Amino acid sequence: MREKIAISIGDLNGIGIELIIKNHHRICKICQPIYCINDTMLNRATTLLQSNLPKNMKLHQTKGKFAIKPGKISKKSGLYSYHSFYDAVQLCTQKEVSAMVTLPIHKKAWEKAAIHYVGHTDALRDIFDKHAIMMLGCKKLFVALYTEHIALKKVPAQIKKSKLLSFLLDFYNCVHYDKIGVLGLNPHASDNGVLGNEELDIHAAIQDANKILGKNIFEGPLVPDIAFTPNVRKEYKYLVAMYHDQGLAPLKALYFDESINVSLNLPIVRTSVDHGTAFNLAYQNSSQLSSKSYINAVQEAITLCQNTVN
Amino acid sequence: MREKIAISIGDLNGIGIELIIKNHHRICKICQPIYCINDTMLNRATTLLQSNLPKNMKLHQTKGKFAIKPGKISKKSGLYSYHSFYDAVQLCTQKEVSAMVTLPIHKKAWEKAAIHYVGHTDALRDIFDKHAIMMLGCKKLFVALYTEHIALKKVPAQIKKSKLLSFLLDFYNCVHYDKIGVLGLNPHASDNGVLGNEELDIHAAIQDANKILGKNIFEGPLVPDIAFTPNVRKEYKYLVAMYHDQGLAPLKALYFDESINVSLNLPIVRTSVDHGTAFNLAYQNSSQLSSKSYINAVQEAITLCQNTVN
Repeated sequence: MREKIAISIGDLNGIGIELIIKNHHRICKICQPIYCINDTMLNRATTLLQSNLPKNMKLHQTKGKFAIKPGKISKKSGLYSYHSFYDAVQLCTQKEVSAMVTLPIHKKAWEKAAIHYVGHTDALRDIFDKHAIMMLGCKKLFVALYTEHIALKKVPAQIKKSKLLSFLLDFYNCVHYDKIGVLGLNPHASDNGVLGNEELDIHAAIQDANKILGKNIFEGPLVPDIAFTPNVRKEYKYLVAMYHDQGLAPLKALYFDESINVSLNLPIVRTSVDHGTAFNLAYQNSSQLSSKSYINAVQEAITLCQNTVN
Repeated sequence: MREKIAISIGDLNGIGIELIIKNHHRICKICQPIYCINDTMLNRATTLLQSNLPKNMKLHQTKGKFAIKPGKISKKSGLYSYHSFYDAVQLCTQKEVSAMVTLPIHKKAWEKAAIHYVGHTDALRDIFDKHAIMMLGCKKLFVALYTEHIALKKVPAQIKKSKLLSFLLDFYNCVHYDKIGVLGLNPHASDNGVLGNEELDIHAAIQDANKILGKNIFEGPLVPDIAFTPNVRKEYKYLVAMYHDQGLAPLKALYFDESINVSLNLPIVRTSVDHGTAFNLAYQNSSQLSSKSYINAVQEAITLCQNTVN
């Protein structure tokens, strides 16, 4: 049976709703989407897009009504995007859907609407009081971030065996994949301690995780600047990066268009496109609009809710 | 007139000499190569390769004679590769050639031969008593490393305005290119100071360098994980990375095969292939042997000696 997936529509002044309408039939082939938007707002968006309303769109009637203003940062649109998101979360927690996919919100619009989260992931951490694992990538390669939005100078002190061990076990529990590469922290993964020593903790965490899991799931510490080269990429579908740019700079160099953002280690499954509201392209039927990230986000949500044991 | 380029043959037990012989005619079209190897050793290598000696190979008769042992780490081969390298340096300093290109040596073989450098760049720094700038890449993108082989935790303290300013000016003086991107240190280039503050020094160094040069050469600090995405790559042929993996992980993800290594800020121009001796492929006429890095190294040496004011 096709999984039910809640889809939050993001900021209605942006490109999210166009992606939804454009891809509805394609999405329906792989899951049963439930869009968190009411009839009135969907009709308004469709009229503005000068397109026909696709048949058989199942909606969750997220409350609210306002005038869509393409490309504008607006309090009302910000608030509505939060309600759409929150409804999708509720559908997940009430088990009415198996997973949720979010379309991009605008941070400034949330701010204007007095929604004090910097984004979806932040909101999810607060709602569930759990440390979500942030993973980005696409079918060819996913990278989970051990540390995320912290200054680079604060990263080395975070590389501690016990903390990394919990992270690895949590991560494995989310993706259930048999081979996961773990990056070192230093150039050449420290060249046996010549260039830093954090690899000792990384190595120990890997060993302990494998012992606990009873299988050699984790491999590393891998040499960071070699881990993304063609031959090594063939080996790993999942990598754990020690810090933000170590993982995301090579990932985005390789797969910018098709990448998605996944929140793991939560009681629900959530994936997201890895782009913004693209206000400059909104409601223009622009040929520049790529559906890759959206399609991939839905596909990965399906994969994850089939893999994850909650 | 085609530039004269000295070519050191690297470890004769490895793949360097095969690359030289295979590509001699192609290389001759773009420069006048002078190979640092004597007739005896060249004949021995050619016999082992079961190939014909290409016509018109101009040699510098690097002294020494030993039995080539394909794929073996050997003291004699290590010593000979050092002499070939040193002769090429001499040809450069004596202005008999415009630049030098090095083929890979084997570090362990140098060690066995009591050559106590970890590699070519290290030897060059010692010979010229100057801080060579290490730059890697290919025609599409070159990345210069502001810091190189140091532990990640030591990087942030190195980001100081005056030191970076000298680096930028030295770098500009080597490449004479009108638009150079400088990466930030922190995720999102610190998001205006939210994630670290080293971008203040980077920004100040960029401003000062541009003021001194009287042109807006340097741009940044660029967001590190965006700097290597397709649209930004179009903008920059040269990037300055703050640390080893920031530059090399995305670079090698994108252009592993074709990348080269360039030593800048020396009294001579030196480029190198960006791969090792590949002992496992030596003297096998292997189809796996790629000439891309070698050809690119020669091409870039020519470009640099035409650009650089020594």
